[in-house]
Amino acid sequence: MSRFRASAPLTTDWQHFDFRVDSSVATITLNRPEKLNPLTFESYADLRDLLAELPHHEGVKVLVIRGEGRGFCGGGDVQEIIGELLKMDADGLMRFTKMTGEVIRAMRECPIPIIAGIQGIAAGAGSVVALAADFRVVATSGRFAFLFTKVGLSGGDMGAAYLLPRVVGLGHATKLLMLGDTIDSATADKYGLVSELVADDELDSAVGALAARLAAGPTLAYAQTKSLLTKELDMPLSASVELDAMTQALLMTSDDHAEFHAAFTAKRPPQWKGR
Amino acid sequence: MSRFRASAPLTTDWQHFDFRVDSSVATITLNRPEKLNPLTFESYADLRDLLAELPHHEGVKVLVIRGEGRGFCGGGDVQEIIGELLKMDADGLMRFTKMTGEVIRAMRECPIPIIAGIQGIAAGAGSVVALAADFRVVATSGRFAFLFTKVGLSGGDMGAAYLLPRVVGLGHATKLLMLGDTIDSATADKYGLVSELVADDELDSAVGALAARLAAGPTLAYAQTKSLLTKELDMPLSASVELDAMTQALLMTSDDHAEFHAAFTAKRPPQWKGR
Amino acid sequence: MSRFRASAPLTTDWQHFDFRVDSSVATITLNRPEKLNPLTFESYADLRDLLAELPHHEGVKVLVIRGEGRGFCGGGDVQEIIGELLKMDADGLMRFTKMTGEVIRAMRECPIPIIAGIQGIAAGAGSVVALAADFRVVATSGRFAFLFTKVGLSGGDMGAAYLLPRVVGLGHATKLLMLGDTIDSATADKYGLVSELVADDELDSAVGALAARLAAGPTLAYAQTKSLLTKELDMPLSASVELDAMTQALLMTSDDHAEFHAAFTAKRPPQWKGR
Repeated sequence: MSRFRASAPLTTDWQHFDFRVDSSVATITLNRPEKLNPLTFESYADLRDLLAELPHHEGVKVLVIRGEGRGFCGGGDVQEIIGELLKMDADGLMRFTKMTGEVIRAMRECPIPIIAGIQGIAAGAGSVVALAADFRVVATSGRFAFLFTKVGLSGGDMGAAYLLPRVVGLGHATKLLMLGDTIDSATADKYGLVSELVADDELDSAVGALAARLAAGPTLAYAQTKSLLTKELDMPLSASVELDAMTQALLMTSDDHAEFHAAFTAKRPPQWKGR
Repeated sequence: MSRFRASAPLTTDWQHFDFRVDSSVATITLNRPEKLNPLTFESYADLRDLLAELPHHEGVKVLVIRGEGRGFCGGGDVQEIIGELLKMDADGLMRFTKMTGEVIRAMRECPIPIIAGIQGIAAGAGSVVALAADFRVVATSGRFAFLFTKVGLSGGDMGAAYLLPRVVGLGHATKLLMLGDTIDSATADKYGLVSELVADDELDSAVGALAARLAAGPTLAYAQTKSLLTKELDMPLSASVELDAMTQALLMTSDDHAEFHAAFTAKRPPQWKGR
Repeated sequence: MSRFRASAPLTTDWQHFDFRVDSSVATITLNRPEKLNPLTFESYADLRDLLAELPHHEGVKVLVIRGEGRGFCGGGDVQEIIGELLKMDADGLMRFTKMTGEVIRAMRECPIPIIAGIQGIAAGAGSVVALAADFRVVATSGRFAFLFTKVGLSGGDMGAAYLLPRVVGLGHATKLLMLGDTIDSATADKYGLVSELVADDELDSAVGALAARLAAGPTLAYAQTKSLLTKELDMPLSASVELDAMTQALLMTSDDHAEFHAAFTAKRPPQWKGR
């Protein structure tokens, strides 16, 4: 993805989740299934750093986030995170909450499309990670719990009070963030929180098919589409129309756009280069 | 709720609706059922003043707004309000429309969760009051009519053109505000305007159960969740993530968050203090 | 509509689509059905200029946009537009994309309600024109394809990345703009993209009935409702409440509001003047 690298090396060993790249698809697998794949101080930090590095991985075109076992991600662990936070001073607390927020912001600003594959529970920080993905492929068993108020905290965690109303509307978002109740996949789908609803035994293949499709597609067009969707939530109409116009004028000079025309004329499928 | 009171007394007698507080739940009952509980110059002013005072009532944790009889609120009365407005000068009109808008803004900025219990019609200003509540518990008989254009006025009344698209999306909001037609509870539910849909004879108990739950819950967490939902509609992503981070860091030092951890460890329900 | 005309004449002959005005309803019919009513350099320019002029047509109260034949609008033609764009320099590309964006902005800022009547495909720029209308009356055969990434371009075209999330939510908008897949009328309806869903053989009469209703209604109230819906997407809550208040105070002095009261009192239907 990146054409401008300087001196900093890329990390080769991520210790706090499983990370692999296969056929241009990077996959983060939260892999402590015995505790429902909790987020920890270390895995948050690894997520933050990986999301900053990932756009510089030349071969990576899609990111999948998934959880091992019967759930996606149970969020911060009560003992490993909450117990420690209660002993922390203001500076420590602030550094922690800013780090977790940075993960979500990096997900939204990452030029690579992100797919969350969700079976079982996505709770707390896990539900916000799912929310910040571009696509939520959800198994029938999938459930969402923005449960922050149930632990005495604010439902607006890591950008959830910004993102959720923009995905499901203010009414549903208020209900979910204020009460913190768990909703099943059918309710999530009704609310607009689901990109694709599949049977549990089809989750992996559905995530794989979407990832493969995105990896084989025009990555520059995808990156700019995501960027515009993210930025224009914060922009007025007239500036958005102008930004769309400038973006499109630039992409009209891209190899991929010319390739579409050549392929269309020759009645063959386009060979996207991502440039 | 308030810990910082100065000299101003609290009003003890609200004359233009029924107001009572029971078990930390304050209830406003619009009580002119023979005219479908119309809003009047006086009841608007009482709503404005009560909403400004309510956060200072130490014992109030939830506000319920309901209507007596077969409807929620028919809005401004044609003779009592419209007839008078037609005789008014520019200064009077502006003071009136600013007052009504202040009611809605105060509802959104009030740190106490607000539940509207809706049976029968919520029309005109009544529909906007319902819209500005955090929760709309709607009986099967519930109906919404943003009927302003039908009286020759703008559909954007009291913030409706701001709030409605953020609850139901721009397409549905345009239809509702432009045409002013009445929608039934099923349509409102489909559009995302309903927090909980119940049978008519279950409305009071459903409202009561939600109010009791909120009153027994972590009120500081609820207040900040509502505040973030309200403010972040007007904020960009990165500032929202930052505000969430600072809010959460502060709430991590709260008694309620520590109480959650203690209760969880002791395997007992938490005793929330709202601090 | 306009009371302040100066020297510039109004165009009487629009060559790149069919344009007619009947009973205060203006209708643009894209009329190259053999190519699915493609947009061309010339028809974009005509749309831009007509939308700028239309508010000055005294007798026009509603605008309908429709397509002849089996589809609404297939978007830019591959040979007539894309082929030419590939030969164009930066200045030409930018002038083109700014012109297309201007069409969408003019639709949103036009004080006249706009109805899109959609049968068959609305693709590419055609789907954005449909999106920018106030009402989408959609036949069962109606389909939407925001297919920009499929030609190697950004899904954010002509303001689509701004408008679509505000109509259907960020989750659905990401799926539609990123993947560019075609959705049918039932899916569009589920997402909130449809104002009215009708059988194909009822499309013309449904569009006609809605247009007639709007033309017979209080046009000043409609114009200000649309203006507030458009502007308040970009405004914070408190400023929106203030703008609503000032707008409403002004409209309370209008002839139409007085007429409502007079008609209501006399138990007769109001005769709207649009003033």
